[in-house]
Amino acid sequence: MSRLIRDLSGGSAEMLEIFGDAALVKHALAFEAALAEAQAAEGLLTADEASRIAIACAQLPLDTEILAAEAALAGTMAIPLVHHLRRSLGDQALAAKIHQGATSQDVADTALMLQAKAGMAPIARELARLRTGLALLAERTAAVPMAGRTLLQDALPITFGLKVVQWLTGIDQAAARLARESETALMLQFGGAAGTRAGQKGKGAAVARRMAEKLGLASPVLPWHAQREHIAGLACALVIVTGAAAKIARDISLLAQNEVGEAFEPRVEGRGGSSAMAHKRNPTACQIVLTAGTRAPGLAATILAGLPQEQERGLGGWQAEGPVLADLFILTHGALLALAPAIEGLEVDQARMAENLRSAKIGGDTGEAEALVRAALKARS
Amino acid sequence: MSRLIRDLSGGSAEMLEIFGDAALVKHALAFEAALAEAQAAEGLLTADEASRIAIACAQLPLDTEILAAEAALAGTMAIPLVHHLRRSLGDQALAAKIHQGATSQDVADTALMLQAKAGMAPIARELARLRTGLALLAERTAAVPMAGRTLLQDALPITFGLKVVQWLTGIDQAAARLARESETALMLQFGGAAGTRAGQKGKGAAVARRMAEKLGLASPVLPWHAQREHIAGLACALVIVTGAAAKIARDISLLAQNEVGEAFEPRVEGRGGSSAMAHKRNPTACQIVLTAGTRAPGLAATILAGLPQEQERGLGGWQAEGPVLADLFILTHGALLALAPAIEGLEVDQARMAENLRSAKIGGDTGEAEALVRAALKARS
Amino acid sequence: MSRLIRDLSGGSAEMLEIFGDAALVKHALAFEAALAEAQAAEGLLTADEASRIAIACAQLPLDTEILAAEAALAGTMAIPLVHHLRRSLGDQALAAKIHQGATSQDVADTALMLQAKAGMAPIARELARLRTGLALLAERTAAVPMAGRTLLQDALPITFGLKVVQWLTGIDQAAARLARESETALMLQFGGAAGTRAGQKGKGAAVARRMAEKLGLASPVLPWHAQREHIAGLACALVIVTGAAAKIARDISLLAQNEVGEAFEPRVEGRGGSSAMAHKRNPTACQIVLTAGTRAPGLAATILAGLPQEQERGLGGWQAEGPVLADLFILTHGALLALAPAIEGLEVDQARMAENLRSAKIGGDTGEAEALVRAALKARS
Amino acid sequence: MSRLIRDLSGGSAEMLEIFGDAALVKHALAFEAALAEAQAAEGLLTADEASRIAIACAQLPLDTEILAAEAALAGTMAIPLVHHLRRSLGDQALAAKIHQGATSQDVADTALMLQAKAGMAPIARELARLRTGLALLAERTAAVPMAGRTLLQDALPITFGLKVVQWLTGIDQAAARLARESETALMLQFGGAAGTRAGQKGKGAAVARRMAEKLGLASPVLPWHAQREHIAGLACALVIVTGAAAKIARDISLLAQNEVGEAFEPRVEGRGGSSAMAHKRNPTACQIVLTAGTRAPGLAATILAGLPQEQERGLGGWQAEGPVLADLFILTHGALLALAPAIEGLEVDQARMAENLRSAKIGGDTGEAEALVRAALKARS
Repeated sequence: MSRLIRDLSGGSAEMLEIFGDAALVKHALAFEAALAEAQAAEGLLTADEASRIAIACAQLPLDTEILAAEAALAGTMAIPLVHHLRRSLGDQALAAKIHQGATSQDVADTALMLQAKAGMAPIARELARLRTGLALLAERTAAVPMAGRTLLQDALPITFGLKVVQWLTGIDQAAARLARESETALMLQFGGAAGTRAGQKGKGAAVARRMAEKLGLASPVLPWHAQREHIAGLACALVIVTGAAAKIARDISLLAQNEVGEAFEPRVEGRGGSSAMAHKRNPTACQIVLTAGTRAPGLAATILAGLPQEQERGLGGWQAEGPVLADLFILTHGALLALAPAIEGLEVDQARMAENLRSAKIGGDTGEAEALVRAALKARS
Repeated sequence: MSRLIRDLSGGSAEMLEIFGDAALVKHALAFEAALAEAQAAEGLLTADEASRIAIACAQLPLDTEILAAEAALAGTMAIPLVHHLRRSLGDQALAAKIHQGATSQDVADTALMLQAKAGMAPIARELARLRTGLALLAERTAAVPMAGRTLLQDALPITFGLKVVQWLTGIDQAAARLARESETALMLQFGGAAGTRAGQKGKGAAVARRMAEKLGLASPVLPWHAQREHIAGLACALVIVTGAAAKIARDISLLAQNEVGEAFEPRVEGRGGSSAMAHKRNPTACQIVLTAGTRAPGLAATILAGLPQEQERGLGGWQAEGPVLADLFILTHGALLALAPAIEGLEVDQARMAENLRSAKIGGDTGEAEALVRAALKARS
Repeated sequence: MSRLIRDLSGGSAEMLEIFGDAALVKHALAFEAALAEAQAAEGLLTADEASRIAIACAQLPLDTEILAAEAALAGTMAIPLVHHLRRSLGDQALAAKIHQGATSQDVADTALMLQAKAGMAPIARELARLRTGLALLAERTAAVPMAGRTLLQDALPITFGLKVVQWLTGIDQAAARLARESETALMLQFGGAAGTRAGQKGKGAAVARRMAEKLGLASPVLPWHAQREHIAGLACALVIVTGAAAKIARDISLLAQNEVGEAFEPRVEGRGGSSAMAHKRNPTACQIVLTAGTRAPGLAATILAGLPQEQERGLGGWQAEGPVLADLFILTHGALLALAPAIEGLEVDQARMAENLRSAKIGGDTGEAEALVRAALKARS
Repeated sequence: MSRLIRDLSGGSAEMLEIFGDAALVKHALAFEAALAEAQAAEGLLTADEASRIAIACAQLPLDTEILAAEAALAGTMAIPLVHHLRRSLGDQALAAKIHQGATSQDVADTALMLQAKAGMAPIARELARLRTGLALLAERTAAVPMAGRTLLQDALPITFGLKVVQWLTGIDQAAARLARESETALMLQFGGAAGTRAGQKGKGAAVARRMAEKLGLASPVLPWHAQREHIAGLACALVIVTGAAAKIARDISLLAQNEVGEAFEPRVEGRGGSSAMAHKRNPTACQIVLTAGTRAPGLAATILAGLPQEQERGLGGWQAEGPVLADLFILTHGALLALAPAIEGLEVDQARMAENLRSAKIGGDTGEAEALVRAALKARS
């Protein structure tokens, strides 16, 4: 896939790495190691066996290009990966003890959850940064009068701070939902071939709990091979974050119109130029955010459409989730990464706001607007 | 719109009424009455004025056909409604005190939230019924062996109860999300023309609190004309409920295939026949649920795509939400209404399950599966 | 369903009737009459039998409320409808000859196609009107200079006619696609229970041809119970028309911003007012079009997601198409109905355009822009 | 982006390369060379200047990683690319003559169209292969009886050939639409900063025609910066191809269920195994196709939602198209690439079909079904 296209979509190197091949393989191997370790703790393997498996997982030399081709043929990554892992051991008896009681989807789902967990950190970081930026901006501009605009027409006066604190409320609410969804969504998958945790000598639940703890994931009572509601919840929460960010970008780009001229993204050396017009200053951060906002809803629809999975493990539904969830993390992070500094450095032209307000002849007191800003900021502190 | 088409989609008379014209107008008038009452309590109107306005709201004779035509022309229902209300008073001075400080979108959004609130009740009722049905069924079939099927192929033995408790987990989780989202989503809208609560002599927050209490909605610190994250959250939660229901319908319809023959919707007199084949027994409840499952995701995408609204009140985004949210409530309720009795009366052919399991030659112990069912049922009690 | 909500979405009485209950039942009965008539022409019924069936179809007294309830129970409209039809005949032998060799889906699909055919006429009419309006406007304003705006920033001068002829090109192209898709999509459905046209004594193809001719639909070689590509093509074409219209509405609403002030929807008595601000003139036609533009894409996704139907006739996919296609016709027609007069009466403020251009300091010749308008208008004549 | 994830989605090396960085840069440079050449032919540059520019385009050494980072900063690839190109010339006067009258979006859109054109070839190839395979299979199995299944229930007998020729009709129709859409969609973009083709001394149209011819694209009368109807048409056509393929995969996977056992993907060494169950044979080709079928509709919704672009060149709408269109080409090609050989080598168990038909007790003649197969095959020859 084109890095050019992806980078233009705001994809950060950090998030691309989190959803990259190396990370995926690392997580898959971590699953196998954690499984062996947990089985050892429950007496299903010896400590030595588990330790040798863990070492094999840590040291497995892998060419991801080759693995990708093998996985595409097999229809799952776990088969060739486990195969390479077993071969690397050199010991057939031990080899048979790898991946014991697990199924391909256990590996794929757990690896995806580990990627999602890793992906939450940079998103949370940028969300925090954006919220701080918005709160400071709202505080600072609480009393700055400007025209309120509804249905794209001048309405009544507001203050710029009110607009900003509205943005903040949207981000706050979206961030809270994302935190809530990720708390429950990031679960270990461990169910075996038909989701029964068969072959663990009755220790399935204990093995699962140990694995989850080791991997830093939640430990569900049941495997969730065909129940993907939490993935859908997480996906929707990401889209809502992106939507809340796109609302801000929509507004800034409208305020930055030459005839309005009230607020602008900060100048960034090398950004926003035009290949045809030297004078132009394009709202490039807004472009990145709005692009993400355009792309995200269709991706949520995909995840939601995949919910009615067939039987114990479905065909074609959950397999569609990986790349879509990856895109959602990349787009959401990219949008926040573009927006946060744009808010921090936002250029606000108060004189122009006042002038537009005068021209609009919609004067009036802005005390209520300012009071709302104060109340909203206070309510969240 | 065709009632035939809508009823075939599972739309219940109850939910159609909740999202019908009469209810919408009733809610809009309740908004105006609550506003006047709250303003009176805060000294902005006299008690007598508020009382006469409330009476006018309660008694307004309205032809919804005419109102609909007027609303279509005006681009909003509130304008003709307030006009009729004012005229009905016969007192110009009092007429001017109706709808004071409110804007059309305040009425539209609040009415939508009141519809959504009313719509939650039958959905919650059917969810409770469905969950009870599933829990009983899981309990009863916890130890009934059958073939587990993955990627539409026989895999390893499970018990039917495990399949059912998985369904239940999906519904449980979807129901919890819906409850969570609706708790925060169902808010009063009251902001006035530009969302500042201007014209309330500093009593805007108090007026809003009183209105919210009167109408049984949450009272947000800020109006939310252009911040629709909670509507998106609610919409997604409804779609996830529908998806979790559609997963169950998918499975039942697969189990009811003649060659599988393991589970069937209960016979309902007059349902599931074929106009061409007298012998046929179609899975009509599944059809209704799967149809809803097909339709819901695109509706969520619509709501999500509308998030980046323009400025203080947008153009074309929030106006798209009403009919889409109505469809989501109708579809979700219709799906649950079809599914709950199908679960309660589900015909389970244990002999056929055993036979298929023998044919599949995938014998094995189902003790783990049964233990999982018990553990899952215990965890939720 | 709320007429208020629907009318606010731009739904016309004409299109609502086309997709209404009475029309649906009328089409279904026309199917049964055409079937009998075609079977008589092919010697499968006597002329008298066909004629008595046709009369019964024409005279059947039906309460659509009751039929809707029966259909919802049965899971299909055809079963109760045929039942009522048979009972109305009073002659058991003849009753058995109704609906011979047909299946419920034959009736449902054919009725939907007849509704779609009827729905194409008003859409084609408004498209023609809109195109004429745009061509005249482009001609008239070919040389009117204004600022070209890219990424929401002033770029270089264009003429207003160039903007308009671009809109026209979009509508032209979308209209051509819609015409193309509807030419092939509007097909008779006649396949019988499993799509084999069994029970027609080898005359199935001839019966189908005669029915199609009678009903004014295309006659496909094969039934298409589970192959819905043409429905998807038609749905996408409708969405693209709506999108091309929404692009125009987006532009007008941006030009109508108070700070830009270059073009406005015509004043329509009673339209565009504000319940809170007497001075305000909202772009209500744009609102209707943009609302349709927001809703349509998700509906296309639904139809597309339903393509992978199961076996000979699917479960839950095609059943989802009817209401969604109806919504698409209603939204598309509503958008065109709002947009066409807005274009015809568009108020263009050339002085303001010139002034904004001067303020933008992006002077330059507009000869190329004007020449492009002329060339584009010539190319389509 | 993870190659593992992408390959598992069926992405072919061929299509990944077509939409890869190197190809994108190559097309962008081809645009610049074609522009210079066309301008020379029209007397706007000397032949020598054009030739030196063409050589520079051909020889430009580029690190796509660096270019990607620069493009992400600039918000467009064209700016850093033209910058590198100019610097590589060493001659400031000549450097200024590169990219003359063009804008970033001209380069981006033309490059995307060249990628799409290149992407059409492998898709057309696989479509042809699939259609041949289906026609042969339909011919061969025209008279093979089996149970027709509707609403996932046994209905009446059909022949397997009828099922196959239905699949073929779907693919035929989808392929015809795709060919039609791509014929008109693959256009040069050349409009300059505001879409007026300014700065070409009245030779804009001629320059565009020459460029289009050189690059093998259609030459539209007008640039189409903000009119993306043809892109939407192409995207929808790709999704419909994927949907028609997914319908086939849905059916095969249902037929391959152990209890049905009528048709199977061919055994491919290393494919379809299970990491947990050695006996299992998963329908991996179907999995790839159904995954693509799940992902494609949401992508179409994204493109459709982007249609209402702002003014002369929009913000965030068209920028979202590149990666989405790339995904659609990758998914569609991957689906066909998996499906075509599965059809060619499809294992059909006629004995099992006969047995299931007997068990279903829905005997009857299949002459009509066979006749339909013959008629349909004849109609397309």
